[in-house]
Amino acid sequence: MNNHECAALLRKQDNILLVTHWRPDGDTLGSAAALCHALRRIGRTAHLFPNPQIIENYIRFIKPYLAPEGFVPSYIVTVDTADTGLFPDGFQGDVDLCIDHHPTNTYYAKNNFIRPETSSCGELVLEIIKALCGGLDEEEANLIYIAVSTDTGCFCYGNTTSDTHRAAAELIDYGANNKLLNKAIFRTFSAARLALEGMIYTGMTTYRDGKVSIAIVTLDMMEKAGANENDCEDIASLPGKIKGAEVSITIREMPSGPCKVSVRTTGAINAADLCAKFGGGGHAMAAGCNLDCAPEEAKEILLKAIDEEWK
Amino acid sequence: MNNHECAALLRKQDNILLVTHWRPDGDTLGSAAALCHALRRIGRTAHLFPNPQIIENYIRFIKPYLAPEGFVPSYIVTVDTADTGLFPDGFQGDVDLCIDHHPTNTYYAKNNFIRPETSSCGELVLEIIKALCGGLDEEEANLIYIAVSTDTGCFCYGNTTSDTHRAAAELIDYGANNKLLNKAIFRTFSAARLALEGMIYTGMTTYRDGKVSIAIVTLDMMEKAGANENDCEDIASLPGKIKGAEVSITIREMPSGPCKVSVRTTGAINAADLCAKFGGGGHAMAAGCNLDCAPEEAKEILLKAIDEEWK
Repeated sequence: MNNHECAALLRKQDNILLVTHWRPDGDTLGSAAALCHALRRIGRTAHLFPNPQIIENYIRFIKPYLAPEGFVPSYIVTVDTADTGLFPDGFQGDVDLCIDHHPTNTYYAKNNFIRPETSSCGELVLEIIKALCGGLDEEEANLIYIAVSTDTGCFCYGNTTSDTHRAAAELIDYGANNKLLNKAIFRTFSAARLALEGMIYTGMTTYRDGKVSIAIVTLDMMEKAGANENDCEDIASLPGKIKGAEVSITIREMPSGPCKVSVRTTGAINAADLCAKFGGGGHAMAAGCNLDCAPEEAKEILLKAIDEEWK
Repeated sequence: MNNHECAALLRKQDNILLVTHWRPDGDTLGSAAALCHALRRIGRTAHLFPNPQIIENYIRFIKPYLAPEGFVPSYIVTVDTADTGLFPDGFQGDVDLCIDHHPTNTYYAKNNFIRPETSSCGELVLEIIKALCGGLDEEEANLIYIAVSTDTGCFCYGNTTSDTHRAAAELIDYGANNKLLNKAIFRTFSAARLALEGMIYTGMTTYRDGKVSIAIVTLDMMEKAGANENDCEDIASLPGKIKGAEVSITIREMPSGPCKVSVRTTGAINAADLCAKFGGGGHAMAAGCNLDCAPEEAKEILLKAIDEEWK
């Protein structure tokens, strides 16, 4: 299916529900909201499934698109959702159309518009809206800019291609206010987040001649910083910032239950294999698991497991 | 002068010295080195003036282009240098050609290729090399990518336009390894830098209901973090990251002499006016001055001056 066929399919529908994924990020939210706006622009009733996990940073952009209570859809579209296991809490149903860029997509929908080579789902929605409406308005350009820029870390992550930059150029020409959005999303942080980040940096430790970096985030640190879940976005990337780190680990003490462990690697060891030892899983370069002990003890257990994995 | 005229002028020259500005950043260095490489590629002898202030992060990219001792140029080109006051330490001489994007450029050279609407000097050199050689090779694409990406904070600063993104797309298509360069320049930091950043975040204070943020960097913090000048790049931007800050101030205790003060504002007060009170200067939104006292005392003096300025 190409973007024109996808647009033609959507044009035939009405009462459309757009579904974002579990723990929604800027890409799933921005893409779904932009498509929702475009569908409304051509006269369709369209709403976003009210994903209960939308964080504060995004809620103000997304609010106008959330479905009112009692909305009964006749056509269901998932956006940026690779697998039915990633459906948001409270959603179940047959999916008519899936728009996604994950190589792991399981083709669970009746129709699928999947482009695994694309850095963000936003770039697919950009092409669909162009086919649907002949172009984007400012609101759609802003929403897709949020999608593209957040999924590529403001064009800094390794998934950024020349096509990503061409999409960004097009979105700015359609009126996306990249200056304002970048400032809001990438350049300002809550005082609590900065305080927490400060504690993480000062407490970070390295092992194996700097090749392993470990950050611990305790409940005590969260309280001292005045931080909550809204202040913890992408916190697992922080220990990987240290020069020379090949394996970076974040251990979070949780209010209840075991510690949450995130493992990122540059390829030195397999993160999924390491986490599988403790009943966790994920990808080769990013995985997670739980450890039911104190954070310091979790660190010792993980360091030992890394020693075993590292050949 | 357009890029073709500029290329034609350069083609007539030999023994060309390319001069970067005082306290060289990625834009002046990447632009000058890329142009140097292109000039060598068409058979010219070309070198960079050995700017004594190049920091560690850039020296490895720039080394192959530095002029050998005793090089006598017959044509001098400055790159990204708005004013003769910004010449690097040890350089004096008549400038034949100036390539620059600063609106404040004083047209001090015999010939001037100035585009004040462009976000980086790298974008001008991209156009010049295309006119000079018909295209870029990988090395030139990498060097100009460094120029463009550093001057726009990896496409995150307010000066980023759709043209910037189009230039980035072109550079990646010419072979720039944006993945590797972004990781090296924007995503990894020395342990000392992260430790210092951590201390700055935890020690940062706000005033006037969060509208003023102040970071103090003492010699003691530098020592505890194991940090030196290489770890302090763009450190004046850190207090401005806090949400709601309209005026952000960084006070650095120096090994000898007075404290160095940097002021950044979003427009609430005029940074240059504030700094002028203490014999300093700069722009409306970014300025600096020196204060010959202890950092905590400097903070009190500045807070009082801000109260007077804030209407």
